[in-house]
This record gives sequence, structure tokens and C-alpha cells, in this order.
Amino acid sequence: MKTEILRLIDIFGIVAFSISGALAGMQKRLDLFGIFVIAFITAMGGGTLRDILIGDLPVSWMKNSSYAIIIFVSALAAIFFNSIIQNYQKLLLVFDSIGLGFFTLSGIQKGMDFGFQPGVCIALGTFTACFGGVIRDISLNNIPLIFQQKEIYATTCIIGGIVYFLLLKLQVPYLPADIICVLIIFLTRMLAVRYKLRLPVLYRKPKSDDP
Amino acid sequence: MKTEILRLIDIFGIVAFSISGALAGMQKRLDLFGIFVIAFITAMGGGTLRDILIGDLPVSWMKNSSYAIIIFVSALAAIFFNSIIQNYQKLLLVFDSIGLGFFTLSGIQKGMDFGFQPGVCIALGTFTACFGGVIRDISLNNIPLIFQQKEIYATTCIIGGIVYFLLLKLQVPYLPADIICVLIIFLTRMLAVRYKLRLPVLYRKPKSDDP
Amino acid sequence: MKTEILRLIDIFGIVAFSISGALAGMQKRLDLFGIFVIAFITAMGGGTLRDILIGDLPVSWMKNSSYAIIIFVSALAAIFFNSIIQNYQKLLLVFDSIGLGFFTLSGIQKGMDFGFQPGVCIALGTFTACFGGVIRDISLNNIPLIFQQKEIYATTCIIGGIVYFLLLKLQVPYLPADIICVLIIFLTRMLAVRYKLRLPVLYRKPKSDDP
Repeated sequence: MKTEILRLIDIFGIVAFSISGALAGMQKRLDLFGIFVIAFITAMGGGTLRDILIGDLPVSWMKNSSYAIIIFVSALAAIFFNSIIQNYQKLLLVFDSIGLGFFTLSGIQKGMDFGFQPGVCIALGTFTACFGGVIRDISLNNIPLIFQQKEIYATTCIIGGIVYFLLLKLQVPYLPADIICVLIIFLTRMLAVRYKLRLPVLYRKPKSDDP
Repeated sequence: MKTEILRLIDIFGIVAFSISGALAGMQKRLDLFGIFVIAFITAMGGGTLRDILIGDLPVSWMKNSSYAIIIFVSALAAIFFNSIIQNYQKLLLVFDSIGLGFFTLSGIQKGMDFGFQPGVCIALGTFTACFGGVIRDISLNNIPLIFQQKEIYATTCIIGGIVYFLLLKLQVPYLPADIICVLIIFLTRMLAVRYKLRLPVLYRKPKSDDP
Repeated sequence: MKTEILRLIDIFGIVAFSISGALAGMQKRLDLFGIFVIAFITAMGGGTLRDILIGDLPVSWMKNSSYAIIIFVSALAAIFFNSIIQNYQKLLLVFDSIGLGFFTLSGIQKGMDFGFQPGVCIALGTFTACFGGVIRDISLNNIPLIFQQKEIYATTCIIGGIVYFLLLKLQVPYLPADIICVLIIFLTRMLAVRYKLRLPVLYRKPKSDDP
């Protein structure tokens, strides 16, 4: 049953990132096929990196064709949503944040299945969550959201991961802990963008800027 | 024997992409070593990704030094061709298209060897064919051909892959099916560039553009 | 014992590249967390690629949490160094060159452990050494040092690798050969930058430049 929940979490993340990828592709005026390709690599990038790092090969989307169908339908949904809502930037933020939550959890849980320590699981969750968006942005020649030096991004995954392991340590059962973890990451990211939360920046003015 | 044909297909793809990489490196005025590095990663990128995704590790170029020699000779040939033909852009297009055909087929066949379904094999073929060119272009700080929103690119691999599985279903023997698959991809890509074939683009004018 | 020396070499390389990553992150005014992320991927990128290509999975930093601690401390040291020395560019060069030496050796030795031929080991060493810096630079939206068409970069790894195998062939014991290999790469790179050493460039003037 735990495997099924893990698969479900994976699927929610895939749906969210497919939509975010398709939206980003439409924003860059890609052709229809390009939109599906970007949706695919955004949705599969994180999980693929996770499986490669762990050595769980062949990667999951090769063993199961249903992923491709889910991505295709999600990308179609994105095209549809977009025609009603007409606000790329906000939609993209919402779906990117949802994907961030689910994929962090999926990376953490797969790490736990393979017996890694909490710190490694959190790092794995963070990579799983962030990598799809990074290759989406690099492919579209955007500066990756994660490196835009604006609101906190990957930090939200770490926070969610730490809370998750604290909850498990406090004997909270898996299902509520799962839900809280995803919600915390989603809400932290949305609030970070809304209230422009940043971490402190460390730099000195370069000398050449001095008068 | 099938393994030998697969290796032969791989080698043709490697030669074509080595030349395309070397040409692109010369265009960017890299030094001699840089040209060989770009030839190497262009030629090996697709197959390396294919082997990593499948989990067929160590990757093939590590098990067999002859690949490095083939790439070296091909890059030298590119330097020679270039001094006669003096048309980077057209030469690059031709060799990129040849490589696209052979690598799509090599990805599909390796997928079949490992027992994946046709859809997965076609996706694997497309990744194998497109990835070398993507890292060639990213390394040289060009926008990848595949994302240039001009003529169809990866779509030609998908078309070739679908035709290939239809031919096999119609009991066409492997060798003619192989040849037809490579030819279709090569010709579709060349015709796409010649006649500026594009897929439909989905976008609305951003609101800010309205008068 | 050989395994322990290999681990030690790895750790020196990780420290050097963590510092170079943290310095590059500070230069781009990343927030504190961003600096640690860049330090992590710079330090772990090369070894991760090496382990994936060989198929030695899960990758080493997942099996051993001490890597993360080393990177964290090194990044803190970088922040400290930087506040005294105040010369990003020179510090970055020094630590990048040290990392280049240690990681080339670590890639070569891991290749030897897995029984690959010298040419493959040198290629593996070069990838291990150069990849961390490449993803550091791509992540920060810089043109990778390796492709900047200035002084020789990856060539220094190849030179160090060739010298290493010559020394072993001349029956030089491992430890002195190790030290000479790292020193040659470090010094060649530093001298290359100091004296602007370049390889010959191959190009014709494009026709459009003609009067």
C-alpha cells in the first residue's frame, strides 16, 4: 500500500509540473510538439535524476507508459486552463509550487525506501523537486527560478523535509505527515512570493563601484 | 549479427555527430582541443544518456576505446571538409540530420532489446538523437536547434519511429525497415528546413501588446 | 589503504571545489542558501557524473553524510577567506585549479579500479575534474570557464593524466606519482592563466567579413 501512495504522490507531482512546463512553453510560443516536450522534461526531470542518483534503473517512465499519457492529458489541460484564466505567471507559480511539494516528498520517501539517512533523503527530495524546473528553464533559455536571487525556493523544500522528519520522530502517522509536508512546502513558497521573503545576501560592494 | 548492425548504426551516428560538433566548434573559433571535446560530447551525449536511462552501465564508450578514435578521425575529416566546402551552416545541417536518423534508430533498437513498449522506444530514440545536439549547443552558448522554434526537429524522430514500428508490424524485415527509418528522418528534416515546415503555434498576444 | 588514499584525494578535491563554488556564488550575490547549493553542486558534480558513467550507484555522497558536512565547512571557510583576501577572481582561480588536479586523479584512479584502459581513465578524469565547474558556471549563467576560449583548461587534465601513466609505466610508486600528477595539473593551469597559454585556433574569416 505504501508503494501505491508513493506512486500517487509521484503522479500528483507529475501533473503539476507537466502543467507548469506546458505553460512555460506556451509563454515562449513553442509549437504544439515543443509544448509537450517541455511538459515531459519538466515532469520527468526530477524523478529521472532521483532514480539515476539512486541507481534505480531503468528510470520509472520507461517501465510504465502511463506516465506519458498523464503528461499528455495534463499539457492539454494547461492549454485549456490558460485559455480561461489568462494569467501565465500566476498559474505557473501555483503549479510549480504544488509540484515542488509533491516531488520533495516523493524524493524523501524513495530515499527512505532505500535506507538513506534523513539528511540525504532531504537533499534527494530537494533535487527531485528542483531539477525538473531547472531544465525547463534552461531549455527555454530562462534564468532558472531557483537561481533568480529573488524569493526563497529550494529552501522551502528543505524546510518541508525537516518538518517531515520531525513529525515522523513525534510518531505522527505517515498519511498526515505526508499531507503536512506537501502543504508546508506549497504554502511557504506561495507566501515567499507574496511577501517577497528572501534569505540574507552576503556580499561586499565590488571596489570598482566605489566613487 | 543484430548486435553488429546495431553497432554499425551507432558508428554512423557517431561519425555524423562528431562532424557536426567539430563544425560547430570551428564556427565558434574554439581551439583544436576544444573542437575535439565538442565533437566528443556531441557524438557521445545521446548514447550516454540512452545508456544511463536504461541502466546499461558503464556507458559504451568506456568499454571500447575505438569510439574515441572514430571521433578523432571524424573531427579531422570535418576540418578537412570545411576547408573545401566553406559553408558551415549547410554542412552542419546535413550532418546533424544524418546523425538524427541513425541515433533515433539506435535508441529505438536498444529499447527493443531491453523489451520496452514501442512508445517508450520512440521516446528513447528521440532523446538519444536530440541530446547530443542539445549539449553541443548549450556548451557553445547557442540556443539549442531543437528549441529554436523554427522548423520541426524532434518531431522528425517521432515520425521516423512511428513509421518504423508500422513497417515491422507489416512484417517488413529489419534491414529495409532500418534504412527506411533513417532515410525518412533525414529527408523530413532536410525538407523541413528547405520549406520551413513548422507545427502550429499556440499563443495569444500578451495583453500588454494591445493598443 | 589504496581506498583510503582515493577517499582522501576525493576530499581535497571536494574542499577546493566547494570553496570555488561558494566564491562564485558570492560574486553573483546569491543568498546564503544559494551559496551552499552552488558549493554542493560544484563539489559533487564531477564525482556524481563519474559514478553515474561507471555505474557505481547510488552515488557516493548518498552513502556517506560526511561529504555534506565537508562542503558546509568549506563554504563557510570561503566566506571567511573572502572577507580577508578580497580578491574573488584570483582566489577562485587557485581553488578551481587545485580541484582540477585532485579530481582528475580521482577520476583516473576510479577508472583504474574498474579496469578501464588508460585512455578511458584519462577521459574519465577529465570529465570528473571539469564537470563540477561547468555546472557551477551554467547554474550562475556564466559562460563555462572551460569554453571561454582563453587559456588552456581541460588540456591540463589530459597532460597530467598522460604524465601519470608514464610515471606508473616507469615503475614510479603510486604516492609520488599521485603528487606529481596533481602538481602538474595545478601548475600548468596557473601558468597557463599567468602567461595566457592557448592552443592554436582553427578558423577562416567568415566571408561576410570580407570587404
